[in-house]
Order: sequence, then C-alpha cells, then structure tokens
Amino acid sequence: MDMPAPNPAILSRKAQIVARLRSVLPADAVIDDPVETRAYECDALTAYRCPPLAAVLPASTEEVSAVLRVCHEEGVPVVPRGAGTSLAGGAMPTEDAIILGVARMNEVLETDYENRFIRVQTGRTNMSVSGAVEEEDFFYAPDPSSQLACAIAGNIAMNSGGAHCLKYGVTTNNLLGVKMVMMDGEVVEIGGAHLDAAGLDLLGLICGSEGQLGVVTEATLRILRKPEGARPVLMGFDSNEVAGHCVSDIIKAGILPVAIEFMDRPCIRATEAFAGAGYPDCEALLIVEVEGSEEEIEAQLERIIAIARTHNPVELRESGSAEESAKIWLGRKSAFGAMGQINDYMCLDGTIPVSQLPLVLRRIGEMSKDFGLDVGNVFHAGDGNMHPLILFDANKPGDLEKCEAFGAEILKLCVEVGGCLTGEHGVGIEKRDLMVTQYEPGDLEIQMAVKDVFDPKWLLNPAKVFPLAASDARRIAAE
Amino acid sequence: MDMPAPNPAILSRKAQIVARLRSVLPADAVIDDPVETRAYECDALTAYRCPPLAAVLPASTEEVSAVLRVCHEEGVPVVPRGAGTSLAGGAMPTEDAIILGVARMNEVLETDYENRFIRVQTGRTNMSVSGAVEEEDFFYAPDPSSQLACAIAGNIAMNSGGAHCLKYGVTTNNLLGVKMVMMDGEVVEIGGAHLDAAGLDLLGLICGSEGQLGVVTEATLRILRKPEGARPVLMGFDSNEVAGHCVSDIIKAGILPVAIEFMDRPCIRATEAFAGAGYPDCEALLIVEVEGSEEEIEAQLERIIAIARTHNPVELRESGSAEESAKIWLGRKSAFGAMGQINDYMCLDGTIPVSQLPLVLRRIGEMSKDFGLDVGNVFHAGDGNMHPLILFDANKPGDLEKCEAFGAEILKLCVEVGGCLTGEHGVGIEKRDLMVTQYEPGDLEIQMAVKDVFDPKWLLNPAKVFPLAASDARRIAAE
Repeated sequence: MDMPAPNPAILSRKAQIVARLRSVLPADAVIDDPVETRAYECDALTAYRCPPLAAVLPASTEEVSAVLRVCHEEGVPVVPRGAGTSLAGGAMPTEDAIILGVARMNEVLETDYENRFIRVQTGRTNMSVSGAVEEEDFFYAPDPSSQLACAIAGNIAMNSGGAHCLKYGVTTNNLLGVKMVMMDGEVVEIGGAHLDAAGLDLLGLICGSEGQLGVVTEATLRILRKPEGARPVLMGFDSNEVAGHCVSDIIKAGILPVAIEFMDRPCIRATEAFAGAGYPDCEALLIVEVEGSEEEIEAQLERIIAIARTHNPVELRESGSAEESAKIWLGRKSAFGAMGQINDYMCLDGTIPVSQLPLVLRRIGEMSKDFGLDVGNVFHAGDGNMHPLILFDANKPGDLEKCEAFGAEILKLCVEVGGCLTGEHGVGIEKRDLMVTQYEPGDLEIQMAVKDVFDPKWLLNPAKVFPLAASDARRIAAE
Repeated sequence: MDMPAPNPAILSRKAQIVARLRSVLPADAVIDDPVETRAYECDALTAYRCPPLAAVLPASTEEVSAVLRVCHEEGVPVVPRGAGTSLAGGAMPTEDAIILGVARMNEVLETDYENRFIRVQTGRTNMSVSGAVEEEDFFYAPDPSSQLACAIAGNIAMNSGGAHCLKYGVTTNNLLGVKMVMMDGEVVEIGGAHLDAAGLDLLGLICGSEGQLGVVTEATLRILRKPEGARPVLMGFDSNEVAGHCVSDIIKAGILPVAIEFMDRPCIRATEAFAGAGYPDCEALLIVEVEGSEEEIEAQLERIIAIARTHNPVELRESGSAEESAKIWLGRKSAFGAMGQINDYMCLDGTIPVSQLPLVLRRIGEMSKDFGLDVGNVFHAGDGNMHPLILFDANKPGDLEKCEAFGAEILKLCVEVGGCLTGEHGVGIEKRDLMVTQYEPGDLEIQMAVKDVFDPKWLLNPAKVFPLAASDARRIAAE
C-alpha cells in the first residue's frame, strides 16, 4: 500500500514538536519513544504498518484543542484514533503524523431517560455505552462485531453498523449531536438532544467522515428501550442463491427482523470445527432474529418460517430456550475467529441491494476459482451489507497482492450492481483508490472541496478516503 | 421582511434572459406575463410577497439542467419551488430571480418492493408517493400536515416530518438517494438504494438544505410495510404542565407510539366550534396513537393508559371502532383550519427536548399576555416539535410586526432550553436572522463555506437561511 513520502522538514523538527506537545499536555500523555509508539503503527488492518512521529493521549476536549492548535501551527498531520479496530486502515499513521488517541476520554457526561439520550466522551467503548444505561433497561442500538473494544469515536468516523442495524439503523440514525475540535483548535457543537438542525445539517456530513473534518470528542447518542425479548431461528439451504432469495422474500413481505445473518459453506465448516455450534452441513445458513413481546415474536416467526418453507430448507430450527438461542448465535459470533484459525484473512465490507445477493454470491464464487484464493461469506444480509473474508497466506510472497486484487474486484462488483464500496468499515487506506469506481470526478471534487472548508491545509488523517494522487495534490497545493 | 435590492442589470436584461430560457424549454414552460407570475409571488407564508422575474416549469432533469446553465451564465438567481406550501417563505422569490417549479415532474420512475424503495421525480406530492405503493400494502412514512399538496422536493429541502415521525423518523431517515442538478447545470447522483456512502455523506447535507446547494429532481425513498392496524387514545388534562409530564413519562418508559399529538385550550375550543369532534372542555389534550397487531395495540395502550392515570386525566377515551378513531383525529386535523376561522395566524415551528414541554408552554402563555396576542398550541409532542399558532389581524397596523416579535421570542426560548429554531418548516426568510441565536459566528461561517462549494456565486435561493446581511455580503463578494 503506497503511502506519501514523509515531509523531511517535519521529521527534522520532531524534538521541537514533541516539546511543544509536552507543554500543553501532562507528561504521560505524549509518547515519542519508538518502542512505545509501536502500538500505534497499525490498526486492525495489520497487513500495513508505519511508525508515527509521536502519539498523544489527551483527556479532555480542551487538551485535544491544544494539541490541534500546536499541530496546525507546525503544519503537522494528525491521525485521530479511537480504539484502533479499523479494518480499513482508518487510523494508520504516516511517518510525519501525530496519532491523536481518545482512549483516555471515556466518561459518561449525562444520561437523560426523559429525552432518551446519553452524552459521552468518544473514547468510550460501544458496549459500555449500553452498559451505562442497562440498569434502566435502555440500550444503544448500533452493535459492530468489535463492540467490546471499538470506541464511539471510530463508530462515528466510520458510520458503523452491526448485526441489529437492519431494524435500528446505523450510527448516523442514532447520533444526535457532537462536540468537535476543528484542525485549528476551534471547538464547535453540532446538533444536540433536539430534533432537526437549522440551516445545513453538518451532523450528517460529519458522521462517516473518517476523521477528515475534525476530531469528535463528545457525542450525544439516542438510547432505546430494550425489547421484552428476542428469538432467533436457524435455516439451512441447498445453495447461496436459494438463501439469498429467502432473504429477499422476507424483506419484500415487509417483515423487519432485527437481524438476518448469512453464512456460506466455507464459513459454516470453519465455524463448526472451531466452535461446534451444531450447525447443519449445508451450503448456506441464515440466522433470522425477531424481538418484541412473546406474542409479537410468535407472530413474526410464524410468517418468516412460512416464507422459509417455500424455499425447501434443509434445516429449520426454532430456538426453544435461552440456551438454544445462544447456541444458534455462537457459530455466527465465532465465524471471524474460526476463519482466522485456517489462515490469514482480509475482511471486506461492501453493500448491495438485497435483491442482488444471489448474483453477487455466485460471482464471488467464480472469482474465488479465478484467483485461486478461498473466500468465506458471513454478513448482514438483511440490509445487503456483505463481508467476504478472503483467505491468504501473509508469508507467501505475492499472496497479499493477489488478495488485494481479488478484494478490489468484489468491491467493484458491489458498485456495479448498485451498491457501495463500504458499509460500515469506511474507505480508509484500503479502498481510497477504488473511490473512482463509485464516483465521477465531479462528485469527488465536491467531497474534496467540502474537506477544504474544514481542513484547508489537509492535515487531518492524511492519505485516507480520497485517491492518494488526488489528496496528495491537494495537500501539496495547500502548503 | 427586508429583501435585498434587485440587481438592476438583471431587470434590464429580462427580455434577453426570458428568450434564452424559451430557447431551452417548451413554449408553455416559461411564464413571464406579470399576471401569470402572480401565482409565484409567495408560498404559504402569505404575509410576504414579491413578483419574480419569471417562472419556469421544466419537465425533466435535462430541462432543469438547461435552465440552471442559462441562469448560471447570466448570473440570475434561482428560487427552487416544490408545491409552494412552505410556511417559512422557503420558496419566496426576489424581483431578479427565476422561480424554478418542479410541479410538472411528478412521475414514479421505479418501485422495488424487494429492496424496499420507490424512485420518483420530486414534483410528486407526498401523499401520492404512498398512493403509488398502497396496492402492495406499503407506504412512505413522513407525513407533513400538508401531505395532500406538498411535494417531495420541498420535503427534502426542509427535512419535513409529520405526526407519525416519532416512530418512523423525518425525511432524512427515509431518504436513500437523490439526483441533483448543481447551479452550473452539472447533474450529480448522491446515495442510492444501498446502505451507506463512501467518503463524505453528502446526502445528509443535502436533506434540509432548503434549495441552497442544488435542485433535487429525483429521489429514492425508503418504503415500509403498512402496520396491521392503529388505534388512538384521547386524554384530557387539567393543565399543560400535567399533559407535558404525561408525554415525558410515556417516552421515559421507553414506549414508542407512532404519534403523540398535543392541543391546548385555545386550540381545543376553536376546534370544537369548527369541527365538533366531541373533545372535552379541558386545558390540554393528548392524542396518543399506537400501531401493530391487535395484541401489540392492546399491550401498548394498556401501558400508556396506566401512565396517563397517574396524572389524573379529566378524560380518557379509547377508540372502540374505526369511526371513533376518525373522530378523535378529526379535531386534530381540523385545528389549523379552525384557528384560521378566528383570525389570521402565524404558525411557528421549533423543537425542544421533550422534558422542557411544561416550562416552554408556561412561558409561551406568559408571553401571550405580554404581547397581547392569543396563541394556540397544537403540535407533535412526542418528539418535541412545537407549532405555536399566534393569532393576529393582518389588517390592523402593527399587528404583524408584534406577531413577528412574539414568534422570535418563542423561537429564542426553544434554543435557550436546548432546542432548535426549526423542526420541519425550515429557516427560509422567516428565521434567517434568528440563526445567530442558534449558532456561533464560526458555525455559521462553516455552513456558508459549504454553500460556497456548491454555489460559489450564491445564486441559489437567495436571501434565505443565512442572516440577510451575511448572505448579501457573500453574494456581492462573489459577483
């Protein structure tokens, strides 16, 4: 993965820059020892690494503002980092950049059940946001697979989703307001606990902007009442196509389960070997979960099972207890780990219209043969958010490059059938050069001109999101 | 209401500009006869009028593009217009502007039940979008009071809501993609039938942008399955405060009705005299509607009624039939008409955190005495979207100005308690000078810089949204 050449003037001024950062932060909040900064060389896209100039761990909006003011004056790029769980390299540093981690900012600032929101510092993990309102039977809906570890900062940056987003929407549907520090250190508040925005709705723009527009330090999040109960049903089918049609039919019937998860044979096999969830040996599995009162659950499952039967399932297993429900979910939740036991893998993330599932799965199977790399599919089928896992051997020369080429073809296919390059992982460094398959040059130009407004010097999260040549040209022009 | 002085150079070139528009549109699509353009002198904020230079009624995206190209070259401002139902003057012309009406663009382009969307031209009315999918038992959720007349174009421009948006969200939560013509005539597509956006999410920015960024000609909208049934319950209370607390308690309990509508005594009285819906003579009424299967409806109503009882209602009327449901809604739906029988009124639109309802209603009552103008409150209480109706006499000198001053005080109060100047009507000309109460100068500067990106000459929908002095300065600087 190409990265821009570091600015030698910044590298040569490292000591001075670090000294300035130390003057505005507590001593232990500035990390410049190359041994210690190793932890910040990559995020969860571990195939690519780069040491940063230094890392800082501010503990408040004021400290973030002070850091950005220094970096702005010194012309130093800044890479905002939540928990570092990005699968797209969204928090990968450049050699001349400061990593700005929000991990120390994890306080709950306000909970308000009457107005149904919680306000938190963005270093707080996704799971512990729900944890903070659990006592009152509320929860925060978006639930990325990494929810134990990932931070709200990253959720906002990537507009993260999760298995239950079919019903509750993704981050942008659950974010009410933010406090954000601009690159020049100015602190702005956008949105709030109220409905709507006067004038241009910048909140929608900031959600999913991958740290390109500012550093979000506080977030006001919608909380929801927990449903009375939930129950999954497991379905096995003879082919991916048939399973895909079953998903389409459920959606078309106007039923809205909280989750429709899909696994294909390679994933089912790997998962069974790893977790022993008792899945049937078939071509494709669906886990469909519904929630509500007991009556609502019964009524929804009845309709879903009737639809499934029209597709001649080889297995149809309703959960009869909490233990059975947990077992049905066990395999799905172990799938990534199970695939990782087999080999290195790259987890892709693209979205497609639900009706294209059968076609896209068939084409991925064909490509797998062409590239000679195995692929497993485990994903949120209800909203068409695919996560193909391509297996490769990181130690085999050329395998990573082949895997990248295969991944690019899959994502191009997503765009071709009317989908999007990214569902919830973001563009990061991984997909920046594929942006031209999604957008016309004019569309990209508008996006970059909007970035100009917020970050005219192009210092925020460099070498991400936009094609490298384009963002490099922009950065150099601004110098 | 101050409007900028028209550009004399444009007025003097009217014949030439109209001739150029005629060269790119069918003969009957360009209206410049001052008698015929009278229909475009105002929108539903009828207190303010201004004749436009001319009006055009293109029938396709290509024709919109051709019109904008001409206007861009000629430096002529353009005021996009949906159905002209704006209550904030969002479609009010200036003397040197062309009205671009999308009324002829009302086709359904695609319906797709499998992927749950409909694609329409934006001149189509809100109600007829639902009409187009009714056969298959689907509907489009946002339901502004003006839904029989208002166009999707205006719904997108103002991010419109409606009575049922408590459950389903407002326009931005139901909009998947747009085709938009930029001021220079370029056509861009943003979003689509798929989940998420790669890079910056411009769709969220465009929704609610009040025609400041481009002319949206096509929209891809989420459609939902109709619920099995719905049923309202009518509750009467001794005071606005108690009714407000009841709303807060329902929300706090985590119940999500589809609608919680609120009427105060002046509205109840006017409505009873006008429509005879059989409402009790009390201080405040709530209409709470729930939906789902019969069992779901029963279960929700039971919890809601239990909460209501703790507030000692003077009336608690469950609907026992479709007729009784219609009668409960009859008064609410007649409220605006009923108030209009009493006097001229100005309908405000602000949002507040739900918990502030009692305080805000009390303060509005006090202000009503101070200003000597009656006010009725009828609004979407569940999501804190207030619609105070201030009564005044348009023929009485000074009354309009007093009404404007009163309205401004109410909206300032909304902002003060943590709310927003606008819920679903937009800023338009009505609230542009109040934007400084909501935003710091730096926040407004960012919004205006984003507008610069899309419309560098500031030709789109002039004199709206931003404080007049600020937008005027921007426009003059760009000349």
